Amino acid sequence: MRTPVELAKAYRLLNHGPVTLVSSAHGERRNLMAAAWSMPLDFSPPKVAVVIDKSTFTRELVEASGAFVLNIPSRAIAAQVIAAGGCSGREGDKFDALGIGALAADVLAAPLVAGCVGWLECRVIPEPHNQQAYDLFLGEVVAASADARVFSNGRWHFDEADPALRTLHYVAGGQFYVSGESLNV
Amino acid sequence: MRTPVELAKAYRLLNHGPVTLVSSAHGERRNLMAAAWSMPLDFSPPKVAVVIDKSTFTRELVEASGAFVLNIPSRAIAAQVIAAGGCSGREGDKFDALGIGALAADVLAAPLVAGCVGWLECRVIPEPHNQQAYDLFLGEVVAASADARVFSNGRWHFDEADPALRTLHYVAGGQFYVSGESLNV
Repeated sequence: MRTPVELAKAYRLLNHGPVTLVSSAHGERRNLMAAAWSMPLDFSPPKVAVVIDKSTFTRELVEASGAFVLNIPSRAIAAQVIAAGGCSGREGDKFDALGIGALAADVLAAPLVAGCVGWLECRVIPEPHNQQAYDLFLGEVVAASADARVFSNGRWHFDEADPALRTLHYVAGGQFYVSGESLNV
Repeated sequence: MRTPVELAKAYRLLNHGPVTLVSSAHGERRNLMAAAWSMPLDFSPPKVAVVIDKSTFTRELVEASGAFVLNIPSRAIAAQVIAAGGCSGREGDKFDALGIGALAADVLAAPLVAGCVGWLECRVIPEPHNQQAYDLFLGEVVAASADARVFSNGRWHFDEADPALRTLHYVAGGQFYVSGESLNV
């Protein structure tokens, strides 16, 4: 069901503000972490911004590999998104610990997270000051894909798809708001 | 109905990824623009990031004043959010043109946008390289407030409030997703 998204439309995967899972890999290690603080930064070439704390194992892998994936989880894996914030990949493979599958990415060595409905493969745009001072990483999107059951022709189609495929908007303390009804003005 | 939000909880106004209106003022001029590309950047002191294109009048006002407000519109003013993207404040006062009210801010000279349900008053953290290279502005939140009918005790309460007070998540081409049901994991 994973199908390519043209790069010019990649920002639309992220434009409505869903929570993300950041996946990364370096050498034999891989990891994922939850990140609500991400946004599109440019249309063409598509760029994104995401906050990755210095304390995280993901930070090590992203800095070592120069790459990350923003995975957009569906409601079906909300419990794993929360659990991902409760353990560290330093202590063992977090995909295995959480029972989350990994898919091969199109361009990067980093894995894609199964059960997600959108994937943005990103190469870090090196900005050492932002990374040090703000934990802020900028990335250029080099490949994008989505679950065709819920994203096609450059648009989400939550209203017509299985409710389990809706995206999540994180608040705090284990609470999300699920993407709701479509409103056209 | 506008009540203060403690600064440590200010990020929660923005954490779920709603579209924003950026308001600004300098001298006798004021303006607002729609911005989907914003996110929290830090908890304490609270910081935010937002993309403000070089072509916009808002950009001039923000650079001249060193401040901006991120206003979080409700569903009730979705049409004005779209209309705000269809005209420029250079041609005349956009609040008047759109029939949108302005409220006095708590700290800044910039106006707050009426009909919104959350307000983050921000001072620009000067980062000229980010501003020039990426149109990326970082701000420190110096005051925050929310409509108590829908945000209290550091939480949104969309499920119990008037549906017209739900926040908006922008896709493209005049389409939003409204914040949906609450999901606790």
